[in-house]
Amino acid sequence: MKIAIGQLEGFCSEVLRRAGVDEAGALTTARILVLADAWGVFTHGVRNLGGYLQRIQAGGIRATGQPRVTADGPAWALVDGDAALGLVGGAFAMRTAMQKARACGIGYAGLRNTCHFGAAGCYAVMAARDGMIGIAMANDTPTVTAPGAAGPVMGSNPFAFAAPAGDEPPVVLDIATSTVAGGKVFLAAARGEPIPEGWVVDGNGAPTTDPTVFTAFPHRGALTPMAAHKGYGFAFMIETLTSILAGAGVVRTLASWSFSDSSVPTDHSAAFIAVNVAAMPTGSAFQDKVGAMIREIRALPKAAGAGRIYVPGELEWERHARAVQEGIDLPAEVASALRDVAMKMGVVGLPSS
Amino acid sequence: MKIAIGQLEGFCSEVLRRAGVDEAGALTTARILVLADAWGVFTHGVRNLGGYLQRIQAGGIRATGQPRVTADGPAWALVDGDAALGLVGGAFAMRTAMQKARACGIGYAGLRNTCHFGAAGCYAVMAARDGMIGIAMANDTPTVTAPGAAGPVMGSNPFAFAAPAGDEPPVVLDIATSTVAGGKVFLAAARGEPIPEGWVVDGNGAPTTDPTVFTAFPHRGALTPMAAHKGYGFAFMIETLTSILAGAGVVRTLASWSFSDSSVPTDHSAAFIAVNVAAMPTGSAFQDKVGAMIREIRALPKAAGAGRIYVPGELEWERHARAVQEGIDLPAEVASALRDVAMKMGVVGLPSS
Repeated sequence: MKIAIGQLEGFCSEVLRRAGVDEAGALTTARILVLADAWGVFTHGVRNLGGYLQRIQAGGIRATGQPRVTADGPAWALVDGDAALGLVGGAFAMRTAMQKARACGIGYAGLRNTCHFGAAGCYAVMAARDGMIGIAMANDTPTVTAPGAAGPVMGSNPFAFAAPAGDEPPVVLDIATSTVAGGKVFLAAARGEPIPEGWVVDGNGAPTTDPTVFTAFPHRGALTPMAAHKGYGFAFMIETLTSILAGAGVVRTLASWSFSDSSVPTDHSAAFIAVNVAAMPTGSAFQDKVGAMIREIRALPKAAGAGRIYVPGELEWERHARAVQEGIDLPAEVASALRDVAMKMGVVGLPSS
Repeated sequence: MKIAIGQLEGFCSEVLRRAGVDEAGALTTARILVLADAWGVFTHGVRNLGGYLQRIQAGGIRATGQPRVTADGPAWALVDGDAALGLVGGAFAMRTAMQKARACGIGYAGLRNTCHFGAAGCYAVMAARDGMIGIAMANDTPTVTAPGAAGPVMGSNPFAFAAPAGDEPPVVLDIATSTVAGGKVFLAAARGEPIPEGWVVDGNGAPTTDPTVFTAFPHRGALTPMAAHKGYGFAFMIETLTSILAGAGVVRTLASWSFSDSSVPTDHSAAFIAVNVAAMPTGSAFQDKVGAMIREIRALPKAAGAGRIYVPGELEWERHARAVQEGIDLPAEVASALRDVAMKMGVVGLPSS
């Protein structure tokens, strides 16, 4: 299905409004989901709208939830997500971190009582679009093993970073701390395809190419951590900055947003850091220097057979530019999930093919 | 060579004082170097004392340099390292970030005009020992390739994180954003051993097991980035938070601390973030919760053949505890480098074997 960005945003936002989400929350959520799709990150975009909707209808996500600051200081804030959509909580908390950074140079916001927040990069980019460095991270249910363990130890705890780059689009790093995001394993399972060795271990900690070992729930196997102990360590860091500092439950008290009882909030956590480069005397040259570094990297010698050296996020922004021109070309399974949502909610506006 | 921690600190500190470093700077540097060795991270400990000394004597590191804050705001500071020892600059800047965090909840300090600062984890632990979350990172000369590139693109830009954990020693993550730290490749080259495929690429971007491809200077090959585009992205993030925001030269203007003209400052940069958990209402339970997570992880099912699941830094703290009891067992090449320093500086106090 090929669909214009504005049209897809309008559709998502209308679906969410009909489910009881207020205008601002529906629009925020729609924009974040569609940004992920425009980047080509289809695992974290509108594909998940149906799942969010199901939790809203069952009560596990509060359609009318309003995130609020429960405690704050000069450069920090703790946010209760009020069990609203994770994307509403995430955008609210990132804006809070940015306000703190505007006042103090750097700001931290910890978010608890939220749900799956989509692509972490979307929040980091909110800061970058406002001239700040943005960092976003979240915890998740345990799906990733660690050296020495037989099963899941940490969540795939995503981490994102973005920086403004002057004439260039913002630099964006958006990764899972597992070797690959769980969504890629689910995609392979849905297509009946094997996965490369190194992505998943079975229930004894041994490598496997069978994605269903992981996609069964409760999980028998586990994802592998990115770069072994390094990904495990990053996931641990993210847990301290999200759930532990935000005051939520930790790892094993979390519920899965896609598998567990839809009527009960999942209690996901997230954390956001903004650095207001404009507050510093080095801030005026910051974006030009990032842009110069980008151009310097592009001009370096290429590996045999490689045409280009991309900077982090560049490939995604190229897809985004194409999506702005030509619309987003949604994969068949995403289009099909979206048609189900349209039918269920009686919302028109999707193209017929 | 087996040597007590205090004895090794005393030796290093005496060497540095004789080279013109003041008492406080010599002691700070000695403690940081010896902490790395006590952790078993011999690539970043006293092994490098001779190299630092050579730069001090040639003038590229200013023995009497005094790092100072050149600009600051409520929660941020920029520090000029005054071309002093990187460990003196690093400790000063981390303390500055901690002061800002004490006032505002979170603090950032960017450090420019410094040199190689040893093990990033030592600075993160300074914060953890004071009940804060600590993050430390640094840039370095380009030695690490990126997807699509034939040669070096970024430095091996290290990243460290530490958090206090109540009755448990602080959790510590201390990593290079390359697959392995360059020091491991140099060690293999010095021993005439091949390296595993995946650590280094040759001048065409192709994998090699020959460490000398990398250890030659100027480098013909390059280290590989940790987890491919992920390590490359982290290194890019670190560059923006260190050199670019601190106001220093970027990647290709840096000099190598071990290879380039010893009489010229290298202009390394670093960045430090401290989060004062005690400022937040969730801070009182923070350490207990981190400790509980550690014990929960330890109790999880083990992989076939694995006896334990370590939390980040645990293995290093066990080595540290043994070093406190029995002394540090320095590898032969480190002991030999140290004897050269002792001879050169006329400092006694090393054990004879």
